[in-house]
Amino acid sequence: MSTRRAYTAELLGTGLLVATVVGSGIMAQRLSPQNPGVALLANAAATAGMLYVLILGLGPVSGAHLNPVVTLIEAGFGRLPRARVAGYLAAQIVGALAGVMLAHAMFGLEVLQHATHVRSSSGELIGEAVATFGLWFVIATASHARPAAVPGAVALYIGAAYWFTSSTSFANPAVTLARSFTDTFSGIRLVDAPMFVAMQALGGGAAAALTWWLTISGVHPAAATTSAAKEP
Amino acid sequence: MSTRRAYTAELLGTGLLVATVVGSGIMAQRLSPQNPGVALLANAAATAGMLYVLILGLGPVSGAHLNPVVTLIEAGFGRLPRARVAGYLAAQIVGALAGVMLAHAMFGLEVLQHATHVRSSSGELIGEAVATFGLWFVIATASHARPAAVPGAVALYIGAAYWFTSSTSFANPAVTLARSFTDTFSGIRLVDAPMFVAMQALGGGAAAALTWWLTISGVHPAAATTSAAKEP
Amino acid sequence: MSTRRAYTAELLGTGLLVATVVGSGIMAQRLSPQNPGVALLANAAATAGMLYVLILGLGPVSGAHLNPVVTLIEAGFGRLPRARVAGYLAAQIVGALAGVMLAHAMFGLEVLQHATHVRSSSGELIGEAVATFGLWFVIATASHARPAAVPGAVALYIGAAYWFTSSTSFANPAVTLARSFTDTFSGIRLVDAPMFVAMQALGGGAAAALTWWLTISGVHPAAATTSAAKEP
Amino acid sequence: MSTRRAYTAELLGTGLLVATVVGSGIMAQRLSPQNPGVALLANAAATAGMLYVLILGLGPVSGAHLNPVVTLIEAGFGRLPRARVAGYLAAQIVGALAGVMLAHAMFGLEVLQHATHVRSSSGELIGEAVATFGLWFVIATASHARPAAVPGAVALYIGAAYWFTSSTSFANPAVTLARSFTDTFSGIRLVDAPMFVAMQALGGGAAAALTWWLTISGVHPAAATTSAAKEP
Repeated sequence: MSTRRAYTAELLGTGLLVATVVGSGIMAQRLSPQNPGVALLANAAATAGMLYVLILGLGPVSGAHLNPVVTLIEAGFGRLPRARVAGYLAAQIVGALAGVMLAHAMFGLEVLQHATHVRSSSGELIGEAVATFGLWFVIATASHARPAAVPGAVALYIGAAYWFTSSTSFANPAVTLARSFTDTFSGIRLVDAPMFVAMQALGGGAAAALTWWLTISGVHPAAATTSAAKEP
Repeated sequence: MSTRRAYTAELLGTGLLVATVVGSGIMAQRLSPQNPGVALLANAAATAGMLYVLILGLGPVSGAHLNPVVTLIEAGFGRLPRARVAGYLAAQIVGALAGVMLAHAMFGLEVLQHATHVRSSSGELIGEAVATFGLWFVIATASHARPAAVPGAVALYIGAAYWFTSSTSFANPAVTLARSFTDTFSGIRLVDAPMFVAMQALGGGAAAALTWWLTISGVHPAAATTSAAKEP
Repeated sequence: MSTRRAYTAELLGTGLLVATVVGSGIMAQRLSPQNPGVALLANAAATAGMLYVLILGLGPVSGAHLNPVVTLIEAGFGRLPRARVAGYLAAQIVGALAGVMLAHAMFGLEVLQHATHVRSSSGELIGEAVATFGLWFVIATASHARPAAVPGAVALYIGAAYWFTSSTSFANPAVTLARSFTDTFSGIRLVDAPMFVAMQALGGGAAAALTWWLTISGVHPAAATTSAAKEP
Repeated sequence: MSTRRAYTAELLGTGLLVATVVGSGIMAQRLSPQNPGVALLANAAATAGMLYVLILGLGPVSGAHLNPVVTLIEAGFGRLPRARVAGYLAAQIVGALAGVMLAHAMFGLEVLQHATHVRSSSGELIGEAVATFGLWFVIATASHARPAAVPGAVALYIGAAYWFTSSTSFANPAVTLARSFTDTFSGIRLVDAPMFVAMQALGGGAAAALTWWLTISGVHPAAATTSAAKEP
């Protein structure tokens, strides 16, 4: 994999992902202001659909991490060269910020905003750990069971996690940071973001340890994750 | 399959399943209190998505039964060693109870509650037998036709059964028991649970007999079910 | 394929299909009486999910026609023995009637009812011809392109056709007849049923002729349709 | 591929696509006049489902472009004979106009109408460029990664783009033109259509250049796109 192409893929992919999360949230809130259940259904469906196409299409180019938690676990297991970690994280953060700006531009809003959406309850923090635990759990077990099914599995998991976790499942530090710059449906106060990220690290780390054991010491996932999107 | 890993998979899988059923029900009721149709759409979609990823990912580890009815039928056909039955059932029940507690914790509610949702009409009991009949019917015929399609088939069936059965399709004794400890959208009075479980046994048993004949004496499903999630 | 098994599959499959159409319609109308859009979303999603699992699972047993239009076209192309046509049609009609009765029993309603839902506008009749044209068009082209994708294609098509045709896409004479015995969301007056069936025959016949030419004289579909659900 | 069959497939496919976009919009607006969020959910789901079946089934007949942007990019990369371009574009435009007329006929409306829906904000124009950029981005990367996944990827992308772009993602000049002849949910003023088409050309062209580089000079997509729907 070409390094420049991989960084571009991570930047572009994370950007489109955030533009989808934020943009569909704005559209949903405009169309169904009285019924936040309908809005979250639309937000979840749009996010899941975009995740599927991004992981499917960018998998062969960069592995389609689109998420610092995924990048760090992959590097920890030795499946991503250490020299690429900083580049991946930078691409994800820059992409995520560009994505939130793009969403605002499409909907005629201020390009950068300060989120005022409070997300600081202990329940939401538990939710965020569970959400990220589940995300890696799904990546690892699906990679182990059937690598070609990873894009669909991640998409369906996140669609479900929007609903079953109290935090609506951010599960991604780059996306969390970006969402602190939008004062719309999907926003989170900048001051609440660090604890969300901490809980994401906790949940992701726990899942990495558990699935390493559950899928026989991570031998299978090692090969599977990186080749997932290449399979027919 | 390692026994300890299999029990862990059943416990974890049933726990995540129940956390999804109960958690998404709480979220849905909060966001759309005036429109239970929207709430059930979200509840059904989240449950179906989670079922897909759990059956896909845990299939190679434990068979991903996540349901005492499935475990007992598999054991009855000699496809699960008898020595494992008690362990599977215990893991499913413990997991289900942990799942309901986790959902409550995420949403800042009392960890264990007494359900007050009455579900005792004869229509609902017929519905529960139909729901479980259909569940095994789908597992058996999909396993016979295309094993790799089982995770998606079960997910889509349960998503449909939330709507076409009057009971919203519990179809799982461990989940039914756990749902008697939540006084939220998805609850069921403890006193109503035994009849639900009885009807589940009836429906599942009838489906096992019928599909055994329909798919030529169960020869094909025997091989197919256990290897379903391993296929590419 | 065993004849007795095939008839049983057609009866059971059409029954579960109709129970889903009618049952999910009742549930949807109860939960969202003020918002028929939400009700039709649920009705369409439940029907599509059930169609997928039935066509997938029963394909190897009977071809999973579940529809007199499909049976007659298949027989017309010589892909179903003439001697089986009457049995298939009878099984579909008996199954459909049993399905509507089962749905009523699950929801505690009169087991057989007279539908009062008027569906007689010329727009709806055009819609019904388009719906059935599209159904066979999808079966034929998907069978030609990728047989294993037929169950999903039919499910997604019918889910779309619930919305884009003015008749909500009955597209099935056996189901139409059965729906004249329910006075709920999905009913149709018995007096309106014959014109619906006539338009279904018109649309299905036109599609059979067109796709026969479009996919090179039906050579590929001939082999593909009957083996669709058997492929891995 | 027979030329006459290919033109017929493009005409028929674009017609069914537009009939679905316009028809499901009319149905949705009638059923949920107070809740445009529910209406857009239905409109997006119906469009996505229809796109899947059309691209799957017509891929082997014509490549299932159904979109002048796709036809021109394919011709630009030398994957569609220049002699066919005019025929493809004509078939798409005629099909799209026939589709809007069919939708009106099904719903008992004037067959041709003048749209009054204003879509001229700069945000919507950005949205339309993003939507079409994303469409080709998905076609190219999915074709490169797993050709058989293209029909599903395009369907899920468009379903998401209905929500995350401010323009609800027309992303197709033939469909845009046709939608200026309906004064319903999905309409666009004829005077606003040219700028939409210009932004679609811009977005599509940018995506063609970028993905050409990202997927290693377009070598893989070249082979993949045209054979996508033929794979098992």
